[in-house]
Amino acid sequence: MEDFKQFLVALSAAAAFGFVAIIFVLRWVLNYKEGLAWDGGAAEFNWHPVLVVTGFIFLQGIAIIVYRLPWTWQCSKLMMKLIHAGLNLLAFIFAVVSLVAVFDFHNGANIPNMYSLHSWLGLMAVILYGLQLVLGVGMYLIPITPASWRAAFMPLHVYSGLLLFGSVISVALMGITEKLIFSLKNPMYKESPPEAIFVNVLGLLLVIFGALILWIATRTSWKRPSDQILHTRHTNGGAEDNTSVEPALSQLSAADSEACGEVRKRVNKLDDQELITK
Amino acid sequence: MEDFKQFLVALSAAAAFGFVAIIFVLRWVLNYKEGLAWDGGAAEFNWHPVLVVTGFIFLQGIAIIVYRLPWTWQCSKLMMKLIHAGLNLLAFIFAVVSLVAVFDFHNGANIPNMYSLHSWLGLMAVILYGLQLVLGVGMYLIPITPASWRAAFMPLHVYSGLLLFGSVISVALMGITEKLIFSLKNPMYKESPPEAIFVNVLGLLLVIFGALILWIATRTSWKRPSDQILHTRHTNGGAEDNTSVEPALSQLSAADSEACGEVRKRVNKLDDQELITK
Repeated sequence: MEDFKQFLVALSAAAAFGFVAIIFVLRWVLNYKEGLAWDGGAAEFNWHPVLVVTGFIFLQGIAIIVYRLPWTWQCSKLMMKLIHAGLNLLAFIFAVVSLVAVFDFHNGANIPNMYSLHSWLGLMAVILYGLQLVLGVGMYLIPITPASWRAAFMPLHVYSGLLLFGSVISVALMGITEKLIFSLKNPMYKESPPEAIFVNVLGLLLVIFGALILWIATRTSWKRPSDQILHTRHTNGGAEDNTSVEPALSQLSAADSEACGEVRKRVNKLDDQELITK
Repeated sequence: MEDFKQFLVALSAAAAFGFVAIIFVLRWVLNYKEGLAWDGGAAEFNWHPVLVVTGFIFLQGIAIIVYRLPWTWQCSKLMMKLIHAGLNLLAFIFAVVSLVAVFDFHNGANIPNMYSLHSWLGLMAVILYGLQLVLGVGMYLIPITPASWRAAFMPLHVYSGLLLFGSVISVALMGITEKLIFSLKNPMYKESPPEAIFVNVLGLLLVIFGALILWIATRTSWKRPSDQILHTRHTNGGAEDNTSVEPALSQLSAADSEACGEVRKRVNKLDDQELITK
């Protein structure tokens, strides 16, 4: 891998900011708020930010960059796809439970549901994330899906994944804004009590975590080697030229069930071929 | 250009959603709110959303995709850089004036400044956008900047530009949330009066505009032809391999002052060379 040191720095920073964000959200609900419970009250609402930060943001972020970890390049592509899909499924479950917690709390406290921009965009994000998951499994984990479909859908899969990740963080920032305005009464949000500053910092941490994940995910040179070749062929052929991608994809597809040592050998061989033809 | 029809659809949709968002923000402040004035009161605050939506979001979005418009491929790269920088400078000025409007209003109404997460992230976005502008001009408009620096900085320039664009929309959504909670009193936001629904839709329009701009900006096949070659070489050499990029960059640099017909000829010639060497 090129710039391995830079990759390690970015990855460590992302992990650190993600972990600190999780600690911050836990400290927020446990120390400043009513704690956690499943009782239809304020303590049930508190599961909402906790599950969103740990699942819908942190786990989704890790799921996005899991192919980038060089230590996993020894594993088969199929194994990595299963880990990617599994982490996203887990994040989706966290998100759905976090919605149940809010609806329960609203219904118990006679607060209307789905009136705010936060709720509109948040529900849309969860629904589209579910759709992305179903389409992703259908395209890349069902063996009979034609390689040409996989290649044609990949740009949309990547774009939607990164856009949804950014949107979820954006919706979380709107949620933080709402909650601080509604729950801080004496002193109010505008008087900047310690809780306001603390939770603003949580928002900052989420933005930095998101920015680092997006940086790692969009560096072509940090791609899994087999995907780098795919990208090279993709770009050479004019970005969305499926015909030129197909051979590489079929090879990857065939390699799915193999151990990764074998895949590495094939990749190196392909690398050599690329060099020779230049 | 590949998929010209798809490009036209995406561009028209982005323009339409952008225009409708501008109409929505104007109707919001003119019909639902106190209108526009520069009097230190609520009507001065209203310049804040108007200038953010028209300048910091719409103009910035257009600035990002201006290289993608095939009708501009006849113009010199220098001309396009000046248009890109000019639009971004205009967007920056709109953003700064929008901040002045808020600070004036807050000071007049004895509301503290800079207490909310919206204000923290908003001010950071304006400062970083200014920095991006200064670095962009220093790197790409000052002729003595070495081509290797330009190539090395480009991935960061593109990443920061797209991240800032997404962040500005995110901060605007937080601003909409704040304003609707603070200003809707009887009926309240949670009672979903027409203004609440109307401004929630404005938020949705901004998200869709942003998503379309990001889609257009990240399609490699829709790049300006000269940049496509650069991208191909970039990727072939392992994405951030500056040495392999330099010849292409110097040629582009030399072509800056030429009319675009001449550039097209050179690009076609390079295309042929690429094909021959494969």
